[in-house]
Amino acid sequence: MAFNEQQLRVAGVQMYSLASQLFPICRSITGNGVRDTLKLLQDLIPLKIHEVPTGTPVFDWKVPQEWNIHDAYIKDADGNRVVEFRQSNLHIVNGSQDIQATMCWDELKENLHTLPDQPDWIPYRTCFHQEDWGFCLTHNQYLELESLGNEQYEVCIDATMKDGSLTYGEFFIPGETDEEVLLSSHICHPSLANDNLSGIAVATHLAQFIGTRKRRYGYRFVFAPATIGSITWISQNQDQLSKIKHGLILSLLGDAGNTTYKKTRMGNAEIDRAVQCVLSHTDADYTINEYEPFGYDERQYGSPGINLPVGCFMRTPNAQYPEYHTSADNLDLVQPQYLADSLDKLVQVIELLEGNVYPQNLKPMCEPQLGKHGLYKAFGTEGNDAEFQKAILWVLNLADSKHSLLDIAERSKIAFPVIRNATDALQDAGLISNHNSTNYLCAAETSSPVSICCDAIDPCIDHNDLSTTNSTSG
Amino acid sequence: MAFNEQQLRVAGVQMYSLASQLFPICRSITGNGVRDTLKLLQDLIPLKIHEVPTGTPVFDWKVPQEWNIHDAYIKDADGNRVVEFRQSNLHIVNGSQDIQATMCWDELKENLHTLPDQPDWIPYRTCFHQEDWGFCLTHNQYLELESLGNEQYEVCIDATMKDGSLTYGEFFIPGETDEEVLLSSHICHPSLANDNLSGIAVATHLAQFIGTRKRRYGYRFVFAPATIGSITWISQNQDQLSKIKHGLILSLLGDAGNTTYKKTRMGNAEIDRAVQCVLSHTDADYTINEYEPFGYDERQYGSPGINLPVGCFMRTPNAQYPEYHTSADNLDLVQPQYLADSLDKLVQVIELLEGNVYPQNLKPMCEPQLGKHGLYKAFGTEGNDAEFQKAILWVLNLADSKHSLLDIAERSKIAFPVIRNATDALQDAGLISNHNSTNYLCAAETSSPVSICCDAIDPCIDHNDLSTTNSTSG
Amino acid sequence: MAFNEQQLRVAGVQMYSLASQLFPICRSITGNGVRDTLKLLQDLIPLKIHEVPTGTPVFDWKVPQEWNIHDAYIKDADGNRVVEFRQSNLHIVNGSQDIQATMCWDELKENLHTLPDQPDWIPYRTCFHQEDWGFCLTHNQYLELESLGNEQYEVCIDATMKDGSLTYGEFFIPGETDEEVLLSSHICHPSLANDNLSGIAVATHLAQFIGTRKRRYGYRFVFAPATIGSITWISQNQDQLSKIKHGLILSLLGDAGNTTYKKTRMGNAEIDRAVQCVLSHTDADYTINEYEPFGYDERQYGSPGINLPVGCFMRTPNAQYPEYHTSADNLDLVQPQYLADSLDKLVQVIELLEGNVYPQNLKPMCEPQLGKHGLYKAFGTEGNDAEFQKAILWVLNLADSKHSLLDIAERSKIAFPVIRNATDALQDAGLISNHNSTNYLCAAETSSPVSICCDAIDPCIDHNDLSTTNSTSG
Repeated sequence: MAFNEQQLRVAGVQMYSLASQLFPICRSITGNGVRDTLKLLQDLIPLKIHEVPTGTPVFDWKVPQEWNIHDAYIKDADGNRVVEFRQSNLHIVNGSQDIQATMCWDELKENLHTLPDQPDWIPYRTCFHQEDWGFCLTHNQYLELESLGNEQYEVCIDATMKDGSLTYGEFFIPGETDEEVLLSSHICHPSLANDNLSGIAVATHLAQFIGTRKRRYGYRFVFAPATIGSITWISQNQDQLSKIKHGLILSLLGDAGNTTYKKTRMGNAEIDRAVQCVLSHTDADYTINEYEPFGYDERQYGSPGINLPVGCFMRTPNAQYPEYHTSADNLDLVQPQYLADSLDKLVQVIELLEGNVYPQNLKPMCEPQLGKHGLYKAFGTEGNDAEFQKAILWVLNLADSKHSLLDIAERSKIAFPVIRNATDALQDAGLISNHNSTNYLCAAETSSPVSICCDAIDPCIDHNDLSTTNSTSG
Repeated sequence: MAFNEQQLRVAGVQMYSLASQLFPICRSITGNGVRDTLKLLQDLIPLKIHEVPTGTPVFDWKVPQEWNIHDAYIKDADGNRVVEFRQSNLHIVNGSQDIQATMCWDELKENLHTLPDQPDWIPYRTCFHQEDWGFCLTHNQYLELESLGNEQYEVCIDATMKDGSLTYGEFFIPGETDEEVLLSSHICHPSLANDNLSGIAVATHLAQFIGTRKRRYGYRFVFAPATIGSITWISQNQDQLSKIKHGLILSLLGDAGNTTYKKTRMGNAEIDRAVQCVLSHTDADYTINEYEPFGYDERQYGSPGINLPVGCFMRTPNAQYPEYHTSADNLDLVQPQYLADSLDKLVQVIELLEGNVYPQNLKPMCEPQLGKHGLYKAFGTEGNDAEFQKAILWVLNLADSKHSLLDIAERSKIAFPVIRNATDALQDAGLISNHNSTNYLCAAETSSPVSICCDAIDPCIDHNDLSTTNSTSG
Repeated sequence: MAFNEQQLRVAGVQMYSLASQLFPICRSITGNGVRDTLKLLQDLIPLKIHEVPTGTPVFDWKVPQEWNIHDAYIKDADGNRVVEFRQSNLHIVNGSQDIQATMCWDELKENLHTLPDQPDWIPYRTCFHQEDWGFCLTHNQYLELESLGNEQYEVCIDATMKDGSLTYGEFFIPGETDEEVLLSSHICHPSLANDNLSGIAVATHLAQFIGTRKRRYGYRFVFAPATIGSITWISQNQDQLSKIKHGLILSLLGDAGNTTYKKTRMGNAEIDRAVQCVLSHTDADYTINEYEPFGYDERQYGSPGINLPVGCFMRTPNAQYPEYHTSADNLDLVQPQYLADSLDKLVQVIELLEGNVYPQNLKPMCEPQLGKHGLYKAFGTEGNDAEFQKAILWVLNLADSKHSLLDIAERSKIAFPVIRNATDALQDAGLISNHNSTNYLCAAETSSPVSICCDAIDPCIDHNDLSTTNSTSG
């Protein structure tokens, strides 16, 4: 384990705190919400923010106009704001056009969205690809208004859709080689905690952790709006893509569900095997899903012309929990311990990738005399020692330059860290060529691995700019 | 579906009618029974009838002498015909030599064959490879005769076995390419309806259907006696065999059992996968059997020197239903709806082969903007639209020239026609290279697909020639 | 079957008798116990005995000093030998250093070993790799002594550990080709019957049997101490290793358990498939285990620099029966019928390897006319004839030079001997190229296959030399 219990607890609280700070911001696929989100992350990691102008061609697409919202409400005849954007970002259909009008209930209700099956929740709705507008509200409130009859209402959406830019953030941590690991999170959802403030918080924390460690791979963190954002990033980085050897979409990482991994398009890439190897040695149940070309941005990374080995690391998958895309995907659904658990597993996956060398047995003719090398423990030893001894023999047996440590872990069914430690002991004894499998990431950190710089999160950042931020309690 | 319910019903009735017309003819591996059968088929499809002279070497075999039978009976002392060929073709052991003799019961019964376990059924027996003779009768009749004691009987088999020829029929429907699909049915069984008038009827109808459609492959229909007939056909067509890319034996297609497919010798040929893909998307249960070198003519097509990918498409397999090779394999066992169901599935298999192209995504970098191309339907859409939308994404994702539509259907678990329709929609939108997957077979027919020319079956064909024909009711 | 029931019964008794003769000898990894054991085997097979001097480098090891023991006991204050080596070889920790001392119980008991869970059994303990000494006794005797209080005892171990040699035996039976089969048994255990006098007895008998038969492969029998013995043998025969095409460790072959096969490092070597094919056609249950680099000398043969396809043929595996490495692994645990059953299965495996040719169908175009070649039996024939007929068709179908008889047996699920007999019948008929699959081993023996020369076991061999031998009854 990279973390002890105490460190994990601290990390969980810090990630939860970050998600809480990001929650009120009204994000969309473009606009100040995304910009403010990335600026807040810049306090934690030296993220580079990119602006790509409206109209820029990105493959089959064009970067869209920028949407910003300043206020929105429905006012009754008495001047009461019965539905109000300031109370929840979800009240407004994301992407709605500007409107100022008075209309009766029968007309208004055509533009209202509710969840009859979950009458206390506000749905999350968007209209990016057509000119439209709408409000979302709880079904109970809808019924209450409906009961008042065909009253007159003043409808106001003070929003702009005009040329601007699409904003994404990128943070690259160089490694000793040119090969890279891609970690990508979407940042376009307003006030939804699990989908995907959880992903943003875990990715940020993971970046901080990796930055403190020696590493073989470079790590490229991309924070971009879903679909058009990742398409834009890919389009702008085509000449760099071949460096990416492994990738993960980080999303839905804070709920109480078990870990779910959706495989890459290839289905048996090293990242697929690495994640499965880690999960198979945890106590918790987990689910492995086959790739399919719908879901998150693995759709883009896995398109036939890009074809990168990018899987999707989640807890309960999208659309498979009732709170998905509703106001109930909030800071109650996400909990610090689940964020911490997700982080912990991801670090184990990264450690596996870093340590996955192809060792060479330097005494390949029969077994070496382990006692002479200080590596013999009697069989029949119980517990960890016995497993370590077995790992020693497995590594010696398969260390023929053709088996990676992951191959050995899979065949022996012994956890990767035990295999890696056995390999290191064998290296120290001169029995295995020096591949430094634990040189990377597992080496002692140069600074505290969980030193997420909370002080750097400026509590005074202007949360009062209504253009991007709301308090959930209004 | 190639057919609607009404068309299928009509097709079923027509195939049943054809089987009924063929039923009374006394077929054998050679002789006028085969010849008359093929002539009757010529009224429906322009079959070419081939005659291969007795003694012609065909690999390790020689074409045998020709057997024809004119009359046969057992007469008791009072001159009553107690067993009579005119009542059922099965009463005579097929291939029996000529005999005119008087003998007592104890001698006669050595040449009688019955089914003690099915006392009302007449067995089907043959003696092609040795000089012998015999009669088959129900076990109940046998017991009745046995009870009369050691009476005298007059035995007459008026049959000839002499040099002549082996007869087979062939019908070739050319396609746009030189590649061919082989469809082969055996035609050597007298008065057995499922084995194999069902195969003959379905093959004839399938040929008529294919003939009305645009097609990529040529289709070669072979109607030949089992074993020696297919060996003869193969021997005479050795230089053409390399054109055959897929093949099916059509047999046992009219009973109430589920479809059974026996794989080719290769076990994973395109035809094997095509049949399984079709069957996996039907509502009915089905069975897939591995290849084994016994059964029907897949034995010959799958011999090591021929090695063609020919599977066997059946309902209940040979020897696995009690009526097999008895008088109970009659026109009650076979029913129009089962013939129609077999035809329907075969047409789906052929459609799959015709449409199984390797598409190329012309916008392979990330997903194209489907809305712009008129191909976006919101996810969450229920039913057919949702499946079509998923098919669109699967085809785009795997259309890298290395995956066929069958590969895509298998991986996505979406039915082939949906995948093909999605491919066509993408072609129409310019997103996929033009492979015309639905150009073939699925294109609108040039004439009615079920126009089996019943009028062409001349009701005046001479059914009274006892050499080849019997009425079942005598 | 190579043996009939009577022959198997005789063979079982003879192998049991050999194990009984070997049981009293006090073997260790070096010394006169091993030497005497091999000399006794020389009376049965012309074994060559090799002596490798102490200090000889063998890969990462050195040949150790030689240990011999002459007497050992614990004497109480009254001069009674309360623990005495002459009563059981297991009473002394194998490898103990010389000691002559008087000590009280509290001191003595630190060097005593018992099995509290099996209070009537003496454990087997060794101390080859450190300077130490000890006695093993039943836990009941231990408790009895303990109850006497802190008495004085005289302790004597009259043993030597000095430069000498490591001893192993080797017997090579040449074949018609240079290719070899390796059969290896460990010989270092004192008075343990199943582990591994059973292996030694079966290997000896197998060697005698093979020696009487015509054979394609050479057979190399190695009788060596575990680990250091096989390492020494490998080290001294490096230039010969490439001739070894298949190998088996023979161990634990006399208990009542089912056969267990542990696969080679490759996991799908011909020997792996051969053993599984044989076992799958026996009536008894059996277990197939994956390779792992612990257990017997398959660890050495399967090390990455050696990488020979050597599996391990056992009944109940090491450490999986309670009597393992205790005085209860005695001549009651091992029984003649289990030794005979192990021998029988091993002979079937060897027969399979010898007969596993790649046949070529000489009439590959369609099926040959079997009747013409005297090979046709009607289908529907029950029992052996029907299976033989199916085997004929399977061999003809797959005899394309690319399928071995083992391939054909696996695919057809027909027992290998039936496939081989069908191949021979086809060869005799000129339908299959002559590969003489039954020329080898299955051909009639030149002398009785079970002629284990019991007379040759000299009953006068000096069993009274205490340096190596004890009677179990004292």
